[in-house]
Amino acid sequence: MKCLVTGGAGFIGSTLVDRLLAEGHHVIAYDNLSTGSGKFLSSAHDNSAFQLIEADLLDIPKLSATMRDVDIVFHLAANADVRFGTSHPDRDLQQNTMATFNVLEAMRVNNVRRIVFSSTGSVYGDTSVVPTPEDAPFPIQTSLYGASKVACEGLLTAYCEGFGFQTWIFRFVSVLGPRYTHGHVFDFFKMLLTNPHKLHVLGNGKQQKSYMAVSDCIDGILLAIKHAHDKVNIFNLGTDTTCTVNQSISWICNHLGLNPALSYSGGDRGWVGDSPLINLDTQRIRALGWEPKSTIQEAVISTLKWLSSNRWVFNAR
Amino acid sequence: MKCLVTGGAGFIGSTLVDRLLAEGHHVIAYDNLSTGSGKFLSSAHDNSAFQLIEADLLDIPKLSATMRDVDIVFHLAANADVRFGTSHPDRDLQQNTMATFNVLEAMRVNNVRRIVFSSTGSVYGDTSVVPTPEDAPFPIQTSLYGASKVACEGLLTAYCEGFGFQTWIFRFVSVLGPRYTHGHVFDFFKMLLTNPHKLHVLGNGKQQKSYMAVSDCIDGILLAIKHAHDKVNIFNLGTDTTCTVNQSISWICNHLGLNPALSYSGGDRGWVGDSPLINLDTQRIRALGWEPKSTIQEAVISTLKWLSSNRWVFNAR
Repeated sequence: MKCLVTGGAGFIGSTLVDRLLAEGHHVIAYDNLSTGSGKFLSSAHDNSAFQLIEADLLDIPKLSATMRDVDIVFHLAANADVRFGTSHPDRDLQQNTMATFNVLEAMRVNNVRRIVFSSTGSVYGDTSVVPTPEDAPFPIQTSLYGASKVACEGLLTAYCEGFGFQTWIFRFVSVLGPRYTHGHVFDFFKMLLTNPHKLHVLGNGKQQKSYMAVSDCIDGILLAIKHAHDKVNIFNLGTDTTCTVNQSISWICNHLGLNPALSYSGGDRGWVGDSPLINLDTQRIRALGWEPKSTIQEAVISTLKWLSSNRWVFNAR
Repeated sequence: MKCLVTGGAGFIGSTLVDRLLAEGHHVIAYDNLSTGSGKFLSSAHDNSAFQLIEADLLDIPKLSATMRDVDIVFHLAANADVRFGTSHPDRDLQQNTMATFNVLEAMRVNNVRRIVFSSTGSVYGDTSVVPTPEDAPFPIQTSLYGASKVACEGLLTAYCEGFGFQTWIFRFVSVLGPRYTHGHVFDFFKMLLTNPHKLHVLGNGKQQKSYMAVSDCIDGILLAIKHAHDKVNIFNLGTDTTCTVNQSISWICNHLGLNPALSYSGGDRGWVGDSPLINLDTQRIRALGWEPKSTIQEAVISTLKWLSSNRWVFNAR
């Protein structure tokens, strides 16, 4: 297959690129390198079946030209800085909603019909049903990030109905592992590098979060596109356990051999729009035979090990 | 109150303008007159508390200047040509999603925080729960129109969480009555004016639809903003009965004294993305004391009477 991976130089994207190449596919990574890194593609570049297109998804002619003869699109590019939505109200709209529309249009005019999409558990907002299944009650969005992802999902499924597309939508918990370059483990590690004696925590530390290892995430995606054949295929993807922010901090501090004084901003949300509890019901993907191989703690530790030996990422942006 | 009504020259918008003026409010209608009509504002223009701004919602400076000192926004402007979404894939995105984002941003920078929004029962897609309540299972969008409206809802509620907005979102069934200028009654009437002996019907005629009278729609909106005070207030609005397309045709033909030969395009959908059944559960708005005063048949008849004496609308576009 000829695969196009948008955000192919990113954390999850580059990991998927390596896996698709290992399975013998032709892979084009499309990335503007705004948050992704060329370094993540160093082994991919050794493979003649790989190509990097350094461009933005808002560059429609470039995107459309790249789409020619593609068999399947893995659309992972996104603004993933969930926390800062209210500082830049149009960022999620442009980089997620509009970018996704551009991908769909480039596909349509090039007769490409299969698209995998990285959505988020944040689309459930403050849901009343926990663990949250894919058919949870009609969600009320609490973040511009979640709002943009649900807008993307709507576009994807409308293209399925209107233009004969087929889609696989994955609502992820947060993903951890090698090449992880944003989120709380990254932030805490960075703060502790600067000052090993103090750590300031957004919220009260009791927010419950769910995480999964990037390898489990890729396994889930590849299994689902192989075995789920509906027009619209929607899957939660995550471990079915949670940890609190405080637990995660204790794993990080233990791993680093530190014992910093903790201070808290307080409240049950880390920031405006933060979900105090994300816990997805993953029965649907488990019914296909998937289960995560790593626990949350193992995923945190593997992330810490990678960050320890790749400290350049803290200065990369 | 100083009220801004986007789409204020449209069918529902101009009816709302007249009602708000009658209640003693100052009203600005903001409309690009692309589908609205200046004629619908002829009585409004007699009132010194009324002003029409003829401009597009994509004209951000104009919109922002108009927003100054506004107390509440009734955002009704939209592309409502549901059927033709796939002919113009970017139209709903631009005129609904982007336009709504512009309205929200103009509000934010002008410190306007209350917004009423006309959503649609189409956001439920092909729901499995009928009659459909506001907290029906997570919907899968089947039309670009529904996708854009759910994107707007997401933006609205994210602004409530992120910027202290308050919103009233109404998911309408189709609305009928005086000043009605698009939809099946309009289309059938127009076809029968051209040829009273034949009528071609999209679908098999058995699609079940729900309608309400525009006066009932306005009653519901005004009642809800008076009595519902949550940050996010979402209401279905419609009669809790349905009619089939065939029933509606029989009322139209009886009213006009015609007996045309009917032909059908076939299938349970009138067009790609059409919902074969829309029937909303309206218990939530009824609990506030609202109930529709007109039946569907009465709403159809009142529409026919208005169309009969306002045949200029058939040539207006």
